[in-house]
Amino acid sequence: MGSAQDYKFEGWMGYDKSAADGKLVWTEFDPKVWEETDVDIKVSHCGICGSDLHVLRSGWGPTKYPVCVGHEIIGTVLRIGSEAASANPSLKVGSRVGVGAQSDSCRNRIPDKKCKECEIGQENYCQHGFVGTYNGTYANGSPSAGGYATHVRCPAHFVVPIPDSIPSELAAPMLCAGVTMYSPMKRNGCGPGKTVGVVGLGGLGHFGVIWAKAMGADRVVVLSRKRSKAADALAVGADAYIATEEDEDWVGANRNSLDIIISTISSNKHLGDYMSLIKARGVMIQVGLPDAGVFEIPTGPLVRGIKFEGGLVGSPGELVEMLALAAEKNVKPWVNVRPMKEANQAIVDMHEGKARYRYVLAN
Amino acid sequence: MGSAQDYKFEGWMGYDKSAADGKLVWTEFDPKVWEETDVDIKVSHCGICGSDLHVLRSGWGPTKYPVCVGHEIIGTVLRIGSEAASANPSLKVGSRVGVGAQSDSCRNRIPDKKCKECEIGQENYCQHGFVGTYNGTYANGSPSAGGYATHVRCPAHFVVPIPDSIPSELAAPMLCAGVTMYSPMKRNGCGPGKTVGVVGLGGLGHFGVIWAKAMGADRVVVLSRKRSKAADALAVGADAYIATEEDEDWVGANRNSLDIIISTISSNKHLGDYMSLIKARGVMIQVGLPDAGVFEIPTGPLVRGIKFEGGLVGSPGELVEMLALAAEKNVKPWVNVRPMKEANQAIVDMHEGKARYRYVLAN
Repeated sequence: MGSAQDYKFEGWMGYDKSAADGKLVWTEFDPKVWEETDVDIKVSHCGICGSDLHVLRSGWGPTKYPVCVGHEIIGTVLRIGSEAASANPSLKVGSRVGVGAQSDSCRNRIPDKKCKECEIGQENYCQHGFVGTYNGTYANGSPSAGGYATHVRCPAHFVVPIPDSIPSELAAPMLCAGVTMYSPMKRNGCGPGKTVGVVGLGGLGHFGVIWAKAMGADRVVVLSRKRSKAADALAVGADAYIATEEDEDWVGANRNSLDIIISTISSNKHLGDYMSLIKARGVMIQVGLPDAGVFEIPTGPLVRGIKFEGGLVGSPGELVEMLALAAEKNVKPWVNVRPMKEANQAIVDMHEGKARYRYVLAN
Repeated sequence: MGSAQDYKFEGWMGYDKSAADGKLVWTEFDPKVWEETDVDIKVSHCGICGSDLHVLRSGWGPTKYPVCVGHEIIGTVLRIGSEAASANPSLKVGSRVGVGAQSDSCRNRIPDKKCKECEIGQENYCQHGFVGTYNGTYANGSPSAGGYATHVRCPAHFVVPIPDSIPSELAAPMLCAGVTMYSPMKRNGCGPGKTVGVVGLGGLGHFGVIWAKAMGADRVVVLSRKRSKAADALAVGADAYIATEEDEDWVGANRNSLDIIISTISSNKHLGDYMSLIKARGVMIQVGLPDAGVFEIPTGPLVRGIKFEGGLVGSPGELVEMLALAAEKNVKPWVNVRPMKEANQAIVDMHEGKARYRYVLAN
């Protein structure tokens, strides 16, 4: 149960937009003001997510600096609030846990008025607002702080146990990149009998291939601009590869061949072409968001009954379900482990697209 | 069973784009070359659909003139092919039947290679192509011809029985306008516990209100530009009305209040505003298609888990299901019956938006 901490919170802090260029500063910081629904975690690993760079450079509106980013967090439980055990009975001091991109919802903030989404375990679509694991504000006014740090404190409900068989560095990137792909693929029936296209082979895209295979899809096709990533795509598990800037007539040759496409790219280019590859009544899932802020969707695919949808990470329940699948199927995302002290160089390398396919910082 | 016909096929024929301006010509025409999977129907009623005007003026690509339009057809069976009874055992000579917007699929055209959609009763999404009830071409090369006529001949599989309790003039507009709304609303779980928005109050929109109430939705809101249709909307069954060009801050006042919106308008204007009225994980259904051929969808709603989809009429099975609901709930669409001989004036009046809310031609 709760006991006063005998450890300090230290982490990589961004003070302004330049932080995204590798100007994070290692410093001690004040954690969230303790509440009895909270858990303290000693961070062992934290994945580097594209969101981290976006927020560091105020790419999604003004960031509340100073900010400590990182929301693919693995660590061990140090302290459990007196009300945390009821929120999450699986937590024990010393147990290995993870925290993804969301660290609160109206579940804790407005306990008497929980929204329908939180009631049914879709906390990531909370109608009263999603509190991000960093750059957010808890009900008690404390800023949320992420995992480029020694410790993280957050409400127990958003902390999930990590199955023993999954190494921490492989579990970390599942908590945002992984579930961002897992959740809409699962919801849309990815599995036996289905053919799946994954647009873009990066941190997100390679999870698209991994989950499609783990879920038992019949065939997985990666679509990327150049042929240069073809060998990686096949090594990750894809059955076929389409280079949209190099293959001739790839649209005509693959029309009406896929049940589900999940796109990780931030562009409207070829959106209509991708949708023409989808069978009648299939689905186009967009987890990449175009910089223009608007998707341009041709009417043709809609008339063929094709759905268009996106999503926002996944719920704690989906994290648990995804991790169970990962353990069962012995899933191996491709990660490059970097020491926590190299965070500045790692975010620069991430921005330059060097990750194959996810960097994970290790304390 | 089949017997040679002792009746002539006559109908209103369009010969070029001017037909849409009320220049149809009444003439005898050659029907589809008979096949034993066919049925002949003596037309009693045919609704006037916006598609009729579009096709008459070559609005969806070049029309195959001469064309006899009309795909909300009610009539009585005159002749049944020897193979038609097995395709549709409910058909009897003299029975009252209907034909909607689709009159064939690969079900008849490629019998040995039926597509998955046709196998599971989603013929309207046939992977080998949808044969329209007019301006289409049957497998035997005959052009399809619609219901602004004395008789219609088409494959029995696309002919549905009409429940006795539904008057023919009320059943007619259900066969295209009705099912265009019914199918995506049903598929998306419209019913008790759901709140539904209907954008546009016309032939399609008024069916949106009717079906939402018949399916048991908790609350139905009509959104239209001016207040002028508010009384009609409430009379059709709506619980509330929003005038998007007259009400102040209608977006702010109604944010996050609807589970399903179905839009019948052909414009991107306010699309993002409509989607902001939808609750997390709800659905935006577009059955109206913008003239620009592209929907512009803001990324925000996708991140809230909102789906975007369209559709193309409904299957024969859905027509049967919809008609059963209409009979059970004693549904009353608003129709203005016009004599078949006034077809030219009726299409001009339809184009001018005078229908309240559907014209039905009667022989």
